[in-house]
Amino acid sequence: MTEDQLRALMEQVREGSMDIDGALSRLRHMPFEDLGFAKVDHHRSLRHGLPEVIFAMGKTPEQIVSIAGSLLQNSGNVLITRAPKATADVVTSRLPGGEYFPASGAIRFWADRTIRGKGKIVVVCAGTSDMPVAEEAQITAEIMGNEVETIHDIGVAGIHRLMSNRVRLTEARVIVVCAGMEGALPSAVGGLVSCPVIAVPTSVGYGASFNGLAALLGMLNSCASNVTVVNIDNGFGAGYVASLINRV
Amino acid sequence: MTEDQLRALMEQVREGSMDIDGALSRLRHMPFEDLGFAKVDHHRSLRHGLPEVIFAMGKTPEQIVSIAGSLLQNSGNVLITRAPKATADVVTSRLPGGEYFPASGAIRFWADRTIRGKGKIVVVCAGTSDMPVAEEAQITAEIMGNEVETIHDIGVAGIHRLMSNRVRLTEARVIVVCAGMEGALPSAVGGLVSCPVIAVPTSVGYGASFNGLAALLGMLNSCASNVTVVNIDNGFGAGYVASLINRV
Amino acid sequence: MTEDQLRALMEQVREGSMDIDGALSRLRHMPFEDLGFAKVDHHRSLRHGLPEVIFAMGKTPEQIVSIAGSLLQNSGNVLITRAPKATADVVTSRLPGGEYFPASGAIRFWADRTIRGKGKIVVVCAGTSDMPVAEEAQITAEIMGNEVETIHDIGVAGIHRLMSNRVRLTEARVIVVCAGMEGALPSAVGGLVSCPVIAVPTSVGYGASFNGLAALLGMLNSCASNVTVVNIDNGFGAGYVASLINRV
Amino acid sequence: MTEDQLRALMEQVREGSMDIDGALSRLRHMPFEDLGFAKVDHHRSLRHGLPEVIFAMGKTPEQIVSIAGSLLQNSGNVLITRAPKATADVVTSRLPGGEYFPASGAIRFWADRTIRGKGKIVVVCAGTSDMPVAEEAQITAEIMGNEVETIHDIGVAGIHRLMSNRVRLTEARVIVVCAGMEGALPSAVGGLVSCPVIAVPTSVGYGASFNGLAALLGMLNSCASNVTVVNIDNGFGAGYVASLINRV
Amino acid sequence: MTEDQLRALMEQVREGSMDIDGALSRLRHMPFEDLGFAKVDHHRSLRHGLPEVIFAMGKTPEQIVSIAGSLLQNSGNVLITRAPKATADVVTSRLPGGEYFPASGAIRFWADRTIRGKGKIVVVCAGTSDMPVAEEAQITAEIMGNEVETIHDIGVAGIHRLMSNRVRLTEARVIVVCAGMEGALPSAVGGLVSCPVIAVPTSVGYGASFNGLAALLGMLNSCASNVTVVNIDNGFGAGYVASLINRV
Amino acid sequence: MTEDQLRALMEQVREGSMDIDGALSRLRHMPFEDLGFAKVDHHRSLRHGLPEVIFAMGKTPEQIVSIAGSLLQNSGNVLITRAPKATADVVTSRLPGGEYFPASGAIRFWADRTIRGKGKIVVVCAGTSDMPVAEEAQITAEIMGNEVETIHDIGVAGIHRLMSNRVRLTEARVIVVCAGMEGALPSAVGGLVSCPVIAVPTSVGYGASFNGLAALLGMLNSCASNVTVVNIDNGFGAGYVASLINRV
Amino acid sequence: MTEDQLRALMEQVREGSMDIDGALSRLRHMPFEDLGFAKVDHHRSLRHGLPEVIFAMGKTPEQIVSIAGSLLQNSGNVLITRAPKATADVVTSRLPGGEYFPASGAIRFWADRTIRGKGKIVVVCAGTSDMPVAEEAQITAEIMGNEVETIHDIGVAGIHRLMSNRVRLTEARVIVVCAGMEGALPSAVGGLVSCPVIAVPTSVGYGASFNGLAALLGMLNSCASNVTVVNIDNGFGAGYVASLINRV
Amino acid sequence: MTEDQLRALMEQVREGSMDIDGALSRLRHMPFEDLGFAKVDHHRSLRHGLPEVIFAMGKTPEQIVSIAGSLLQNSGNVLITRAPKATADVVTSRLPGGEYFPASGAIRFWADRTIRGKGKIVVVCAGTSDMPVAEEAQITAEIMGNEVETIHDIGVAGIHRLMSNRVRLTEARVIVVCAGMEGALPSAVGGLVSCPVIAVPTSVGYGASFNGLAALLGMLNSCASNVTVVNIDNGFGAGYVASLINRV
Repeated sequence: MTEDQLRALMEQVREGSMDIDGALSRLRHMPFEDLGFAKVDHHRSLRHGLPEVIFAMGKTPEQIVSIAGSLLQNSGNVLITRAPKATADVVTSRLPGGEYFPASGAIRFWADRTIRGKGKIVVVCAGTSDMPVAEEAQITAEIMGNEVETIHDIGVAGIHRLMSNRVRLTEARVIVVCAGMEGALPSAVGGLVSCPVIAVPTSVGYGASFNGLAALLGMLNSCASNVTVVNIDNGFGAGYVASLINRV
Repeated sequence: MTEDQLRALMEQVREGSMDIDGALSRLRHMPFEDLGFAKVDHHRSLRHGLPEVIFAMGKTPEQIVSIAGSLLQNSGNVLITRAPKATADVVTSRLPGGEYFPASGAIRFWADRTIRGKGKIVVVCAGTSDMPVAEEAQITAEIMGNEVETIHDIGVAGIHRLMSNRVRLTEARVIVVCAGMEGALPSAVGGLVSCPVIAVPTSVGYGASFNGLAALLGMLNSCASNVTVVNIDNGFGAGYVASLINRV
Repeated sequence: MTEDQLRALMEQVREGSMDIDGALSRLRHMPFEDLGFAKVDHHRSLRHGLPEVIFAMGKTPEQIVSIAGSLLQNSGNVLITRAPKATADVVTSRLPGGEYFPASGAIRFWADRTIRGKGKIVVVCAGTSDMPVAEEAQITAEIMGNEVETIHDIGVAGIHRLMSNRVRLTEARVIVVCAGMEGALPSAVGGLVSCPVIAVPTSVGYGASFNGLAALLGMLNSCASNVTVVNIDNGFGAGYVASLINRV
Repeated sequence: MTEDQLRALMEQVREGSMDIDGALSRLRHMPFEDLGFAKVDHHRSLRHGLPEVIFAMGKTPEQIVSIAGSLLQNSGNVLITRAPKATADVVTSRLPGGEYFPASGAIRFWADRTIRGKGKIVVVCAGTSDMPVAEEAQITAEIMGNEVETIHDIGVAGIHRLMSNRVRLTEARVIVVCAGMEGALPSAVGGLVSCPVIAVPTSVGYGASFNGLAALLGMLNSCASNVTVVNIDNGFGAGYVASLINRV
Repeated sequence: MTEDQLRALMEQVREGSMDIDGALSRLRHMPFEDLGFAKVDHHRSLRHGLPEVIFAMGKTPEQIVSIAGSLLQNSGNVLITRAPKATADVVTSRLPGGEYFPASGAIRFWADRTIRGKGKIVVVCAGTSDMPVAEEAQITAEIMGNEVETIHDIGVAGIHRLMSNRVRLTEARVIVVCAGMEGALPSAVGGLVSCPVIAVPTSVGYGASFNGLAALLGMLNSCASNVTVVNIDNGFGAGYVASLINRV
Repeated sequence: MTEDQLRALMEQVREGSMDIDGALSRLRHMPFEDLGFAKVDHHRSLRHGLPEVIFAMGKTPEQIVSIAGSLLQNSGNVLITRAPKATADVVTSRLPGGEYFPASGAIRFWADRTIRGKGKIVVVCAGTSDMPVAEEAQITAEIMGNEVETIHDIGVAGIHRLMSNRVRLTEARVIVVCAGMEGALPSAVGGLVSCPVIAVPTSVGYGASFNGLAALLGMLNSCASNVTVVNIDNGFGAGYVASLINRV
Repeated sequence: MTEDQLRALMEQVREGSMDIDGALSRLRHMPFEDLGFAKVDHHRSLRHGLPEVIFAMGKTPEQIVSIAGSLLQNSGNVLITRAPKATADVVTSRLPGGEYFPASGAIRFWADRTIRGKGKIVVVCAGTSDMPVAEEAQITAEIMGNEVETIHDIGVAGIHRLMSNRVRLTEARVIVVCAGMEGALPSAVGGLVSCPVIAVPTSVGYGASFNGLAALLGMLNSCASNVTVVNIDNGFGAGYVASLINRV
Repeated sequence: MTEDQLRALMEQVREGSMDIDGALSRLRHMPFEDLGFAKVDHHRSLRHGLPEVIFAMGKTPEQIVSIAGSLLQNSGNVLITRAPKATADVVTSRLPGGEYFPASGAIRFWADRTIRGKGKIVVVCAGTSDMPVAEEAQITAEIMGNEVETIHDIGVAGIHRLMSNRVRLTEARVIVVCAGMEGALPSAVGGLVSCPVIAVPTSVGYGASFNGLAALLGMLNSCASNVTVVNIDNGFGAGYVASLINRV
């Protein structure tokens, strides 16, 4: 039941062309969620600056072009994640303005570059191989209106590199830490700062890393109290939550 | 090298009783971490309102009394987590002012009740059995200076109860959701709000819940983008991070 | 917003004491879930014969007495599952009419013995040790208004016992099969009948049974197409779904 | 021992050319399964409308053509599942009348379109990527003589979409829910309806989804009592059981 | 249909009081498994020397006394496995002649001490803690009519002890090897002999032994071709199969 | 120390050119394993009819040709397992007399066709997809001098097919059962016969079969006492042990 | 064959009472391992300072007293590990000179306090709860003749404490690091030093620590190249290997 | 703060252009890690003979050429691990002097062939398929200045081959043992020698080897006390630690 239908019903009641029991009956059987739906949508339009996101994995280039094309009408930012090169070629040739990031597979369409974050988000990655995940976090945080700084290649086994970045870390309002293998970096970073740290285990490693399981378990058991965790390789989720925290 | 030693060295340089190369040499071999230690401590004292926390599991009552007694000198808030009844009896009889919460095993000593959080933290739990974990999150957030509201017993299978709490949920600045079994509640809550949601899998369940593993995996795979996860039953960690987010 | 409030609002519209925009505004901000809640409850009362169920694990005897006492006012059937002996003693002494089943820990309060199932439910268990789980399924199906027949101790390694019960099995409208260890019985039963088979892995076994995991995996991989699976030891769930199937 | 042999034996008894002890002895050593085999087959021919099913995975196109060709003689419906494109090309070019569904890999041969289901089966899928599994369930249910309705793309994190489909869901006699990632949808659907819900975990996801394990565990731990589970990606099994329930 | 009923039927045929079609019809609908059941039982009685076995775990002392008492009527050997001390006290006081082995929890009743095995069975255990499992294998093999020799405490890390027992090992017709921790002994033994080796992983160990999983996996991956494996701690199964091999 | 060296030493002792202490000293420091090696080899030549086996996985065609060529000099049977087509082409073109089995990847070179097994080995497989594993078992048993009979496609869900093969099964001296998915067939077969049953879990299946883990666990937990288990897909090992049992 | 027997044989050869072929024949059939056994024992007595070790878990106090009593005759050091209090009471009352360490359950008997290690072994533990494991490592290293220094309570999340111990760490010749939860400390320590680091995962933690699995996996995936790992809670093994390294 | 800046500051103090409080204040806020960094670097240059190592997995040939080119300026040894053939072709054609090892994927650049190890390192591998991992260990140990001896193809199931290499094993100062499948070899080797043994599980195997998990668990549970473990297939780590031990 749309608002127009509701208004029409009210007018019938006022005009007496429908009695109250009839109106109640229609309302009672009205799928209330339609009303809820409207409210939610309304609220949604109030969530300024949240980009529309398309998860490309398992979709054909045509499907992605179609969805993205429709979203781009709404003049908000659009982010496509996990697009392989071939898909990206189709999408960027058909939809102008897209910027492709091959490491993470992200495609970004800017409509609104307003900075909404109140502070700086720092994205840290432990090794070179973790950079695609870090890039996904960075691109997500940027398109959500944040200033993002990245620090690459600081591992737990090279603690002096961590220490020499301490000042930059303490200036962050939220930190995203991407690490594979033993996934120990979030604890070390978490112990140096007092802001929230979002840990992203990556599937980087071999053998007993079990595709990121070792890093995931390590992070969940972090002895630093300011660490929360997202799914393995989920740079997008980390960048998204970091952005939400940075705008509260 | 303490600050006093450093000052003495400087004075020797100024007075000429030590030449610059000698001073540099001493500084170069000085275990720099002493300096760092001091700085960190200094910074630490600036972190207003962070409570001292003692994890009671695996400590004797005597050890806890001794640690807590010493911390209580510093006139900050003190939180003891996971204390069994017998331990709590010893602690509260020896250290006045402690408040014991048997469900979660927390003991709380208030020194400073300043509200530091900028908004409201809502702690949600899916079922009655998840309440001890939710209580730990609540007590942690409260002692860190937050207004906390709790919503109990709203599960994914009773979606109307979730919907009837939607307004309260949307008023939160951060939400903690504790759930065992399939751990689906954080996704449902996450889809209703746009603030960060911290998911706490609990070990509630049997059989294929594998002591919380099912809930943990469910939460890590949440289809809601605003969800991050902490360890199984880690109400403390969730309350801690929620507090940090609420004060940024 | 209750129905009375809604009616009052309508009357204000009809009488002109509230204009349509005002009414729409109130409706738009009305927490719609209240309405939904009511509808659901209404629907719920229409679900004849579904018992109220209390999962006793992790609740104190007092909590259970209180919840059960309140439910017993509504004059429907009440089922308590997984109650240890001590709890059952308290409950049955305080609430008359309860029947306790020590093997499964169920307590049953009959208010309505109408048979609602259209056919017979057969509950099979592979070994003596699986009987508590089978009992839970049986009691659940009975209190939901079904005629239940039980067959004990027919295993895959003693196929003649299975064959000698074939006629009884083919007479069932739904079959519940409880088995631990390798959990092969549901496949064997499923191949003999053409009705739906609900498989309940039990935690019976040792070593590489991994507390029911072996049985669970076996059942999920059943080569019989008519088998679905519930959680390890979840006799209640199997009895519940079997009852729903038997009344469609 | 065929029926003819049995009749011959009886005649010898009647004619006295064999005494009763001899006859009993022969019967006792008769491989009884021959008799049983016949009975089973006889019963089998009574199971009207169950299609013949070929699981294509691990079979060559030639093997499938040969098996399907033979089954198609019997003028029943034939369903081939999990056939890759190349296999399907061979099969459909050699056996006329086959309809190929590339998403799920199903090939369907209709011989009998009688509707045998007493109500409507609704197949729900959580995301676009779950659609191949849902398609397999739908095609299976259709060829078994059911009216099937599909609802795509309703997730737990977008609860309003779920709510807006509530009426359609409550009209179902059985519901199949396919979901990957955290697999929470069956619980949410299960809480809205009172009919049986068959949950199909899909391998959709990445990282800690562990190829469908997260969804599988979530569904097995569902807090909704009307949910049973089949193997990961087993749309066929879900459609099959749903059909059996719908015809009881 | 019992043999008596079958004989009666035959007599009716012979006497002409039932025609052949009627008899065939009754036979055709006779639950053939009854016949089968008889045959199996008959066959069973031909399996000389197989003991009756009761798995005590999860049974009350009374149940065990009752089952064992009945089995002891048949004057075959009876073996009860995994009986705790308290159960054994009840059983041996009520049923004379039982011999209790506290390490493995076996109770043995001898009726027939015929040696049926054609050669010697050697039971090896890696460490002192594996002895209860080895004892279960030994007792089982003995009651099944075998000469059993035991070798204790030869581990892979003490290869000279293994070598000094080589002659005894090569004299065996079948070898059972019980080992926990890394479970490497069966491979080493298997490489020394050319007879079948049955490997029993034990739950002995801690940490990454995961209650016998490490030993189990090790044995399944044995590089010796003559090794097969039974469940963790399943000394009974190993002794049973060794006995079967020894009598073929 | 070779036998010649030992003889020379003895002669020196006899001739007095070396005193006994010197001889003892040399013997004491002699790497005794050389002696042992000889004995083992000697014993080895007594193991009539054991084929030489080459596991092709991870070896180049050239390596295999070289090893096999050398083994073929010894005029014993040679078996190559797990050779892909390309490897087999090289091997069979370079080494005459090889017979290639594409399903299992085995290549067989016959030198000695003596039947050494005392009875019949029956190899059973549950489904068409399990046939490559069954073939490996069959070929192994044949080249080790056994009469092998195969039974295909008898599953637990089609128990009448199992029953109609009961006679053939009871005639076996050892049975190998290959099954994927839930791996229930060994229990069913084991319950029908009293000979040893060697269970081979196969990696056939999908989803929660976890590449054969479900079948493996099922078989390890078999409720039939005469079942032992080998590694997933290890048809060779099963055929090998079956042959050893059949010749004891 | 003992040395005496061998000497006798030689004498027979020298004296001509046995010819060389006869002697060779006896030697060839002599179980060579007896000789080997002797040699090994001889070598063993050369391994100065290796203590005799008894793993108490799963042994009765009497068994331990008996084994230890016998070992104490040999006047070497004796170490008993994992003895519960009750066992220790019996042992120390019956065998004088034993020193009991309740945290780790070790009992130590000193006979020889020679320092054999060439440098210092440092044992580090991450938290108070890891101390029992660290104590086991320390006691083991001490009884093997090493100077041991311990550093407690330095975690990855408190990096300044780690840094302030850097000098002590760099002075070590081998380092043992015990850590539970995420097990990240060995990497951090490993990055600071260039000596070998032996990592001991402990079972300290809860939830997703899975009894030490998280720490174990973390350590196996350490990004520091100088780290090797022992079993969960295996302080003994770590101390043992550290001692071996320290004496090479 | 560089050393130059520090010297300038000291000069200001000496000249009186900065008072001591000001200098202290600047020092206190100086990111101390810069100083630490210098010290570490200084120390690092003292670690003679440690090669620079590049892990090639996940890096482009260009990235590797660039990093290696820069490292080669420093005239130390450079080791690249896990480089596929295509990468190696680019690297060796662009950077002269590189030696490529296709089995392990290592590329080695020698600058300094000083022998620094005090004894011999022996690298053992269980089977031919384990040779790439053994090669990685060997090459690593060689480039770190060690004499390395390799022993191939000695398995636990062929104990005489192990015994015949006993002398060579006892001559080692450290032993690296690479083994897949059940991973039992390190225990057997460990029992023969008294030096440290570093165990490398390999991913060689199939089925229940679970890509090296079986071998890993086996080695962690080794009953030999002198065994430590590194990650699956981590030949580099084993060679690295062996080198460190050999030079202490």
